[in-house]
Amino acid sequence: MNKIQYSVAELAERFALQFSGDGARIIDGVGTLAGAGPSQLSFLSNSKYAGQLANTRAGVVVLHQDTLESCPTAALVARDPYVAYAHIAALFERLPAAPPGIHSSAVVAPGARVSPTASIGPCCVIEEGAVIEDGAMLGPHCIVGPDCVVGAQSRLVARVTLVTRVTLGKRVLAHPGAVIGSDGFGLAFDRDHWVKLPQLGGVRIGDDCEIGANTTIDRGALDDTVLEEDVRLDNQIQIAHNVHIGAHTAMAGCAAVAGSAKIGRYCMIGGNAGVLGHLEVADRVTITAKSLVTHSIREAGEYSSGVPLQENRQWRRNAARFKHLDEYTRRLSALEKDKNND
Amino acid sequence: MNKIQYSVAELAERFALQFSGDGARIIDGVGTLAGAGPSQLSFLSNSKYAGQLANTRAGVVVLHQDTLESCPTAALVARDPYVAYAHIAALFERLPAAPPGIHSSAVVAPGARVSPTASIGPCCVIEEGAVIEDGAMLGPHCIVGPDCVVGAQSRLVARVTLVTRVTLGKRVLAHPGAVIGSDGFGLAFDRDHWVKLPQLGGVRIGDDCEIGANTTIDRGALDDTVLEEDVRLDNQIQIAHNVHIGAHTAMAGCAAVAGSAKIGRYCMIGGNAGVLGHLEVADRVTITAKSLVTHSIREAGEYSSGVPLQENRQWRRNAARFKHLDEYTRRLSALEKDKNND
Amino acid sequence: MNKIQYSVAELAERFALQFSGDGARIIDGVGTLAGAGPSQLSFLSNSKYAGQLANTRAGVVVLHQDTLESCPTAALVARDPYVAYAHIAALFERLPAAPPGIHSSAVVAPGARVSPTASIGPCCVIEEGAVIEDGAMLGPHCIVGPDCVVGAQSRLVARVTLVTRVTLGKRVLAHPGAVIGSDGFGLAFDRDHWVKLPQLGGVRIGDDCEIGANTTIDRGALDDTVLEEDVRLDNQIQIAHNVHIGAHTAMAGCAAVAGSAKIGRYCMIGGNAGVLGHLEVADRVTITAKSLVTHSIREAGEYSSGVPLQENRQWRRNAARFKHLDEYTRRLSALEKDKNND
Repeated sequence: MNKIQYSVAELAERFALQFSGDGARIIDGVGTLAGAGPSQLSFLSNSKYAGQLANTRAGVVVLHQDTLESCPTAALVARDPYVAYAHIAALFERLPAAPPGIHSSAVVAPGARVSPTASIGPCCVIEEGAVIEDGAMLGPHCIVGPDCVVGAQSRLVARVTLVTRVTLGKRVLAHPGAVIGSDGFGLAFDRDHWVKLPQLGGVRIGDDCEIGANTTIDRGALDDTVLEEDVRLDNQIQIAHNVHIGAHTAMAGCAAVAGSAKIGRYCMIGGNAGVLGHLEVADRVTITAKSLVTHSIREAGEYSSGVPLQENRQWRRNAARFKHLDEYTRRLSALEKDKNND
Repeated sequence: MNKIQYSVAELAERFALQFSGDGARIIDGVGTLAGAGPSQLSFLSNSKYAGQLANTRAGVVVLHQDTLESCPTAALVARDPYVAYAHIAALFERLPAAPPGIHSSAVVAPGARVSPTASIGPCCVIEEGAVIEDGAMLGPHCIVGPDCVVGAQSRLVARVTLVTRVTLGKRVLAHPGAVIGSDGFGLAFDRDHWVKLPQLGGVRIGDDCEIGANTTIDRGALDDTVLEEDVRLDNQIQIAHNVHIGAHTAMAGCAAVAGSAKIGRYCMIGGNAGVLGHLEVADRVTITAKSLVTHSIREAGEYSSGVPLQENRQWRRNAARFKHLDEYTRRLSALEKDKNND
Repeated sequence: MNKIQYSVAELAERFALQFSGDGARIIDGVGTLAGAGPSQLSFLSNSKYAGQLANTRAGVVVLHQDTLESCPTAALVARDPYVAYAHIAALFERLPAAPPGIHSSAVVAPGARVSPTASIGPCCVIEEGAVIEDGAMLGPHCIVGPDCVVGAQSRLVARVTLVTRVTLGKRVLAHPGAVIGSDGFGLAFDRDHWVKLPQLGGVRIGDDCEIGANTTIDRGALDDTVLEEDVRLDNQIQIAHNVHIGAHTAMAGCAAVAGSAKIGRYCMIGGNAGVLGHLEVADRVTITAKSLVTHSIREAGEYSSGVPLQENRQWRRNAARFKHLDEYTRRLSALEKDKNND
């Protein structure tokens, strides 16, 4: 494999950044401030790591104007060093080769339509009525069910399952084990047993969304489950049927959203947070990790539930008291009343 | 594909319902009250949507006698409109074709027994001693391990793994990514390292159970892990070894049950709720979302834990106080004692 | 299949245990105290089950010297009966046959290196630069991505995915649906949309680790995600990028660790517990189920968060009061001040 390499001056020009120091220095990779060597690029974005700048051995550092003076090596100056680093680092990523065409072990139904520029990996199964658009890449073991569409330049890394009536926009990235379009959990209780409600809707995923490993997104009961564009889901997230998630919302690992909840744009949902069904969350709401949203949130802001971690014996004492908190507050009020009657 | 269609009168007769309005009207699908068109059937069950009835464009509405008068179109009158709708809607579901026989890409061990009326999809692997009974449907990429049984009319949608010694009853429905019969998490600590306990039991799943996408059910250490009939598990649920779940119990997404817990019949376990191991939960117990069951529950009823969501700054103040709750209650008691000594 | 059988005397000799009773008795399996028959071995470790000893029909019981007198049958005496049982029971486990060689349906890249003593099951995909070492066993549908290494005697039960730059040590055991080496969740916010950070690191898993069903372990952004030796992960655990887990730590189902957290050795993390990112947990820390670790823990010990389960109506009253806990404590302080001013 050829080495990927750029001079510092080339990087500055390509990303429209100022540079200081040796523009001719050749960069062939990226690393942390503490770990990068002379042919690697690093970055300083989080002030927590500022102390590492003075001793870095990196060939060049992407940083903000404010820290330029302390930089012992070449620098690329960016308004937002983290964003600039994200763009530059992408140059050094080697994606697995994905030659156009259909692997001989893949099973493609006669009624499926696969673009000649798409790449279909080993053991993929593409079913009737499915469409794979230009430049889409399906790694090994992906299943694209009936009437599903994989948009142009989308990438199913490996072992992604689209069950039925799922439409992915352009440049969607889905990680291994993701299941999109599985049955919503719809049941009616008939005297003494459950009756299943057929799940007749689909799933629509907007452009530039990312779906984490082993994340599940159910299809709608009647209407569709919807993710607008640029929604970012981490691993092991559960999205129930008929959920609607606004553009640019990001959710951390193990979060879950119950049926028919509507989450706004630019929200941040913390790890293992939950949102109950049939409620609405406004735009630009942040939910901290492990919190449970039990009612609609009408205003932007940060919301939390839970109690803090403590050493177990202390915690036990406090937790036991919680069971009588209502009684304590009544006793408090009684004392106050007595006081006022004195 | 042929259209699926029924007249309103045909539906009334088939499901033993009264109808009012135009019995000859042809119905070819279902939809929401707000979205259904003149050839679609809708339903009114949740009173929250009653306001939509007057303006519905649906061809026919399944509803309760009480709301019949307000219905602007044909109606099918049901004691429980949601249950009746569930049955009717199933008529309009198109399941993927599953022709009897074994796909040429599937790998079936010589000692496996597959009914000639079963359908085995692409890339399935059926191992030694496995049995696939009449009319069972295995979608693509299912793995049926040694000595597993898939009961008649059961359906493994796609990419379901039965590891070993798993028996599914009749009409079991398992969704993609489900893993049934994986090793229980059994470890003994030997001075300075872990020793694994072999997991020699199996899993028994009763008739009419449903297992959600990416749900995991471990096999027993010695005895079996058991789900009685009509147990309904949503996505990403974790059932540990030797758990026993009673008939007709339903669990919402991301719930988890630890080893050897015994859950009763007709229970409802909320999303991301947890049940600790080696305890018992009575019949007809409801656990609300994200609650943790830490002791046996002997009586039917609804149980909860957790604290409510608040705006983050308010929450922080309250949460900080929780760490001293025991101290506050002692101070409260001291004040009361002083008062009584006055 | 041949029966696996040993006499009681043979077991005593093989595991260097004392025995009492009939050493010639033949044992061909294991069972619970309550369920084992005369040709089966059982054990007594948890004093909760001591009452079952008197009536056991087991052929031999592994137990501690202290309970030997109450044993009605042959006994094997062990310092730690649970550990001794774990070792003995392994004799009676039948693992699926895994003949050396590559199944005809597997797809192995020309640049992959597979030991002739390894077993590669049906529909496995081994990509460029991957290495499968001696005696490794890959069940059906495993994917070993570019530049991944599966160490000697490791076992991927079925449908395990190693995405890229993943190195498994020796004797690693990974269960179905596990995804190791997926992209870390790294995003930079650029004015109005997300920019993805390439995830250029890998994952290193030490010898004797166990990875549960549908567990996900992301690869590092720059450095690697690391599990030291003998780390035991149950099902549906989420390990984010650049996490470091010390040797012999065990985590129960549905636990999750956020990016760059460092967990010590010999820790026990309870079911559905969470650890936030960029913090450290000392050696020999226990976190109880569903707790959230929000700050570094410097000392060994047991830590908890959460509030206890209650009947829902009681719980509602207490939970409502929690929202005003700060106010109550202020009112309490005010009363105390008044009192002191009396």
